[in-house]
Amino acid sequence: MLKPARDYPSFRAVVERGELVRVVGAHSALAAALAEQAGFPAVWASSLEISAMRALPDASLLSMNEYLRAASEMQKALAIPVVADCDTGFGNNLNVAHMVHEYEDAGITAVCIEDKAFPKMNSFSGSRHELVDVGTFCSKLTVAKNTQRTPDFFVIGRTEALISGIGVDEALRRCEAYEDAGADAVLVHSKWPTNKEVLEFLQVWRRKCPVVIVPTTYPKWNADEAFRAGVSVIIYANHALRTLISALQETYRVILREGNTLGLESRIATLHDVFELQRLEEWKSLQP
Amino acid sequence: MLKPARDYPSFRAVVERGELVRVVGAHSALAAALAEQAGFPAVWASSLEISAMRALPDASLLSMNEYLRAASEMQKALAIPVVADCDTGFGNNLNVAHMVHEYEDAGITAVCIEDKAFPKMNSFSGSRHELVDVGTFCSKLTVAKNTQRTPDFFVIGRTEALISGIGVDEALRRCEAYEDAGADAVLVHSKWPTNKEVLEFLQVWRRKCPVVIVPTTYPKWNADEAFRAGVSVIIYANHALRTLISALQETYRVILREGNTLGLESRIATLHDVFELQRLEEWKSLQP
Amino acid sequence: MLKPARDYPSFRAVVERGELVRVVGAHSALAAALAEQAGFPAVWASSLEISAMRALPDASLLSMNEYLRAASEMQKALAIPVVADCDTGFGNNLNVAHMVHEYEDAGITAVCIEDKAFPKMNSFSGSRHELVDVGTFCSKLTVAKNTQRTPDFFVIGRTEALISGIGVDEALRRCEAYEDAGADAVLVHSKWPTNKEVLEFLQVWRRKCPVVIVPTTYPKWNADEAFRAGVSVIIYANHALRTLISALQETYRVILREGNTLGLESRIATLHDVFELQRLEEWKSLQP
Amino acid sequence: MLKPARDYPSFRAVVERGELVRVVGAHSALAAALAEQAGFPAVWASSLEISAMRALPDASLLSMNEYLRAASEMQKALAIPVVADCDTGFGNNLNVAHMVHEYEDAGITAVCIEDKAFPKMNSFSGSRHELVDVGTFCSKLTVAKNTQRTPDFFVIGRTEALISGIGVDEALRRCEAYEDAGADAVLVHSKWPTNKEVLEFLQVWRRKCPVVIVPTTYPKWNADEAFRAGVSVIIYANHALRTLISALQETYRVILREGNTLGLESRIATLHDVFELQRLEEWKSLQP
Repeated sequence: MLKPARDYPSFRAVVERGELVRVVGAHSALAAALAEQAGFPAVWASSLEISAMRALPDASLLSMNEYLRAASEMQKALAIPVVADCDTGFGNNLNVAHMVHEYEDAGITAVCIEDKAFPKMNSFSGSRHELVDVGTFCSKLTVAKNTQRTPDFFVIGRTEALISGIGVDEALRRCEAYEDAGADAVLVHSKWPTNKEVLEFLQVWRRKCPVVIVPTTYPKWNADEAFRAGVSVIIYANHALRTLISALQETYRVILREGNTLGLESRIATLHDVFELQRLEEWKSLQP
Repeated sequence: MLKPARDYPSFRAVVERGELVRVVGAHSALAAALAEQAGFPAVWASSLEISAMRALPDASLLSMNEYLRAASEMQKALAIPVVADCDTGFGNNLNVAHMVHEYEDAGITAVCIEDKAFPKMNSFSGSRHELVDVGTFCSKLTVAKNTQRTPDFFVIGRTEALISGIGVDEALRRCEAYEDAGADAVLVHSKWPTNKEVLEFLQVWRRKCPVVIVPTTYPKWNADEAFRAGVSVIIYANHALRTLISALQETYRVILREGNTLGLESRIATLHDVFELQRLEEWKSLQP
Repeated sequence: MLKPARDYPSFRAVVERGELVRVVGAHSALAAALAEQAGFPAVWASSLEISAMRALPDASLLSMNEYLRAASEMQKALAIPVVADCDTGFGNNLNVAHMVHEYEDAGITAVCIEDKAFPKMNSFSGSRHELVDVGTFCSKLTVAKNTQRTPDFFVIGRTEALISGIGVDEALRRCEAYEDAGADAVLVHSKWPTNKEVLEFLQVWRRKCPVVIVPTTYPKWNADEAFRAGVSVIIYANHALRTLISALQETYRVILREGNTLGLESRIATLHDVFELQRLEEWKSLQP
Repeated sequence: MLKPARDYPSFRAVVERGELVRVVGAHSALAAALAEQAGFPAVWASSLEISAMRALPDASLLSMNEYLRAASEMQKALAIPVVADCDTGFGNNLNVAHMVHEYEDAGITAVCIEDKAFPKMNSFSGSRHELVDVGTFCSKLTVAKNTQRTPDFFVIGRTEALISGIGVDEALRRCEAYEDAGADAVLVHSKWPTNKEVLEFLQVWRRKCPVVIVPTTYPKWNADEAFRAGVSVIIYANHALRTLISALQETYRVILREGNTLGLESRIATLHDVFELQRLEEWKSLQP
């Protein structure tokens, strides 16, 4: 009652359905609940969205337990799984082990770690991105897999090889090593203005582990085409944040300009909508 | 540099400018920063918005320190003051004293407490609302004022007399007592579909302490008219939340329907906008 | 590895062993781990100890999520169950439901709520203690039991009838009602300087649900005798806190007086002991 | 009233008294309050103590905001300043800047950062310790000093040169560079079983900035002698933790062995002592 029990499917179970999995970014339990209502089968607890909500850059300034709290708040409100963006694993192998303990305890069934050095900088920030060497990152993945206590826990190994400009071959080499080290899926991230790099990757990729993409800079590629090209999971990582920004800018401007909120009323959710999202009637029924 | 120092004006200083003060609700540091950019002189850390972001009702389920954390995160990102919605003061006089200590420590310069019994239910929820008696609430206000250590700390005494249906006379009687007990301003809340109740209140109110309103159910009343009628502060308490809900619903729907995000790109903020809000270039300049 | 998996026995399983259950208070994961090492089968996450560690009174000043964080940090470090002191349930039925959700999510298998009004004052504080009426508290217990999602979750109904001075008959009447309302055990709290009141209670109590006591003011009563008299669970609620205070006072005094720590070295744990408690070697083995 | 206002002296003010400053480690607000009562002029928010209280190693597993919360909880309970052990600064220059913002906002007036690489391992753990190069650490110190907004904020630059075994000359070279980069004091840490290394350091040190030591492994050296040898600040970093461990072990053992707590009563603080530390009567006076 009231809240979904911890009987949501794991992210692994969602992936194993064999269909394309579309995952959307969120920054709060409410955003995550709206994503579930819209029909997404999983939510991305995006480090960019979560740090931006604090008006801070996505640069390892927020710490593991702050990202964890955000992911955990989302998961509590959902009957679908959260996939937690865990940056670099927040340090070395010990940090990764601690992270896995904490995320599992919070009921999170999937995490994603990437091969950038800690502290990282957001992939689209125009910075040079230093990668750790393959062995170091494989060791993190192996520690993550050895640490997990729930069989379904799912670890995505993400390479920033294309982001750092070292090419598709290196991305392939890394992803193969990551799969061998135990990654349950690989995420090949690209900031190319088209799907060109990712397509090149997919044409060579022959491993069995699912491929995840984040098509921020190539928004034109259709999900079904991507699926046919070999993509298993698509993460729309930052559109909720960007939507929130433009929508709030407009609302705040209108209030100051109009001197009242009358014109807004028909364009924004009602308080009744808010109460429904909060399941207010269910809660009220507890107190006679 | 980077972040505004703790040299923002107190809310008291904003009120003492003598102009109408328009305050807008927020639920995160980012929303608050957007409100500041739009031109608002203060931000309302709304308990409805903050609890709704957790997908929980506004019913004293979140606790003082969770509301405090939200208000504090906002204040850290701002050069304008936050006004913290502190519900009932979270219990009795001891809770009020603890609350004042904690909010002052976090650099918050204004709080609002209301005369409903703890635990409260949101004013628009259609519940019966039990008020505490006048003496009990005056005692809370006096404790709050005696506890504060910074001279500017500003305590708004809010009556829910109109929300609970006991009439304008009782609202007046209570607000007068609250002013006498030390309130720096009074908030007279109404859920009437027009400004009728509030106007009746203002026509009789002859005290010197500023009057605050929250025109959620009477959105037509223009700010300038309200100012001329005797209102000092207007709080647009929940429009940011309601905007977020409808905007995210639309974005999430579009992504699933279109199969890509191309159509969204022109309608939502860019990553460059995000980076600017995060002051990314300033931060990056710290690391050679 | 490293940390016990979430496969510790539930508190219910411990009680159902049929032996006397001795539970000891703690205020941190470390204290809890030491209690486990000493041989206790369960730990009491005491609201007095937890609030005192913050240098705050045990008067509902800390909030549910602060007590929860403390209890959760303990449980993460343990292979025995935590019993969480949840005061009054932190408000009304809605607060109780939210509390049960949150404690279950954190892996806590037992909570204790009491029939004082919120905000409460510590039972030994010399205050008048207002009780809520039986029906109100039974409703909280029923909501707690209806809310739980894990079958083993264990709810202790605690009466403060003896603390508030209304007598053994009222304590009995209340505990019977609490059992009928669903309580998995009853706690009859007494501040009498001997076990007299509790013995009177036990001589009449004929229900099947286990009886819990907290012999703070009657330290002479031996555990085995109490068991034979009908007690199932004994909570030594505050001795860890009181030990910490006197031990730290002495250490701090010695350092200032002696001008060095030489004399302390043989009387306090070594750094090697600290490292063992932290399982440092296991952690270090993760990083080649 | 109730709690000290934020008018405690800054740590800088304490150092500038010109007397030897003895600082003692703590792990909670209560321990810190006991240190203040004993007569210490400042408290060390030790990362070893704070992480050990969570039953976790001192290995950068807890994050900045967890250490900050602990330090902030201490400072709220004190009329003396907290010196916060900030490890490596939690990452690169950006992390240092964020850290300074957050600690200043929390009213902390002194932090200590060290020249080990992130993630660090406790200095006594028997690990190899990798240092960052001098320029990298100087850049952190400069960023810290440029970021601070309160003039009194005090940054201690700590070298682990002796801990990592690279010798007194390198320790001197580093401390000189750290002073030049803006450090308000230098901490020269040693795990030598006597004060030999530190004495060698002091015999050569001719700079004006205060020298801080942590005599964990050389407990025999008297404070007055150290002062005469050129030490300004002595940190007794971990004795509170070690005291707590041995004292709790004994108490827990006694309870299980004796079957009651009678024998403990005369050796541990009373509930009345607890209430005094909590200032219970002051708090109670707020509620008529």
